[in-house]
Amino acid sequence: MEISVNEGILDLNERAASENRKLFDRHGLLVINIMGSPGAGKTTVLEKTIDVLIDSVRLAVIEGDIYTSKDARRIEKHGVPVRQINTGGACHLDARMIRKALDEFDLENIDLLIIENVGNLVCPVEFNLGEDIKVAVLSITEGDDKPLKYPLLFKESAAVILNKIDLLDFTDVDMDSLRRDIRKINPVVDIFEVSARSGEGIDDWVRWIIKKVKEKTE
Amino acid sequence: MEISVNEGILDLNERAASENRKLFDRHGLLVINIMGSPGAGKTTVLEKTIDVLIDSVRLAVIEGDIYTSKDARRIEKHGVPVRQINTGGACHLDARMIRKALDEFDLENIDLLIIENVGNLVCPVEFNLGEDIKVAVLSITEGDDKPLKYPLLFKESAAVILNKIDLLDFTDVDMDSLRRDIRKINPVVDIFEVSARSGEGIDDWVRWIIKKVKEKTE
Repeated sequence: MEISVNEGILDLNERAASENRKLFDRHGLLVINIMGSPGAGKTTVLEKTIDVLIDSVRLAVIEGDIYTSKDARRIEKHGVPVRQINTGGACHLDARMIRKALDEFDLENIDLLIIENVGNLVCPVEFNLGEDIKVAVLSITEGDDKPLKYPLLFKESAAVILNKIDLLDFTDVDMDSLRRDIRKINPVVDIFEVSARSGEGIDDWVRWIIKKVKEKTE
Repeated sequence: MEISVNEGILDLNERAASENRKLFDRHGLLVINIMGSPGAGKTTVLEKTIDVLIDSVRLAVIEGDIYTSKDARRIEKHGVPVRQINTGGACHLDARMIRKALDEFDLENIDLLIIENVGNLVCPVEFNLGEDIKVAVLSITEGDDKPLKYPLLFKESAAVILNKIDLLDFTDVDMDSLRRDIRKINPVVDIFEVSARSGEGIDDWVRWIIKKVKEKTE
């Protein structure tokens, strides 16, 4: 019974996601859905990304959080339009939440919408939002066993950001094993090694985004 | 509609949890449900805990994971009975999964059952397993904003383990603010600062468990 109920909810979500996607395509807007555990560094990666991107791409941000608007307040300081979605307890964003938040943006004047999902390595990836691209952020401090333990997000993502590499020397993480496991799950994924804190590796990741935006808007 | 469906699932779970609890009480068994994000260090904390506890307490472990049995294999090396539950995609353990796993233990000869839940800071806390005590593990590398962003687990927990304090100097974490936020959510919670990697702080945490086991078995 539980399964059929969940399938119902996911079906409803797929329909809403498909409507969102049509709207994004009509406006030539690239949409990236960023997911990862609490504390993987999604918001900090996003802050550094915005600082580099803001001169070349017209971007906007949707912040997903359960109760607070802490992350949206951090993002708005970087001078981009941002909307907060509070899920009120739910462990993921869904397509209908995104649809409502879209009403507040001028989609015609945006090339890139970045959605930061609720911090959760399991549930968000099951709910399509209508995005073009899913991106996983994993802090290396979470350990090199995480891709095989939580494979779905890594399987569905076009890019994986391995964050906090400035802490590598203080962990027992085997980076070769980590990269190998990610490629085992998803052989075509692009992997970026980044320290959002120091800014290391952000430029390569931003170049990747700009390429994807051009592919969509051309 | 979604809400009433979820309430149904939670009601079913509460009934199963209550049955589990009766069974635990009948056997004078203390049950601890350990929760936290992927990579918070739950398994490593548990390994260090077992190594200290094993001489004084008869304990067993249930490992919750989505697909793998990596953590159970780590635990069994420490010489305690362990059972793996694979949720097959689900983001949390539920009381019926625990009930099934219990059949394989000799409950009369166990004083303490530790359940390590699926790595997820959001969903597991909504599903009672019949446990006596919920414990949150938070790696300080996740950032000091996490308790206010994900308050429910911190509210429901009798103890919070702040893990990976050996990495404190390499982060921007404000420990005073972190502790203050946890106490704001839960004024009576016991907070332990631990490095599961080095073993620092494990003794205090183990003394706390032994005290709880005695309270239950006396």
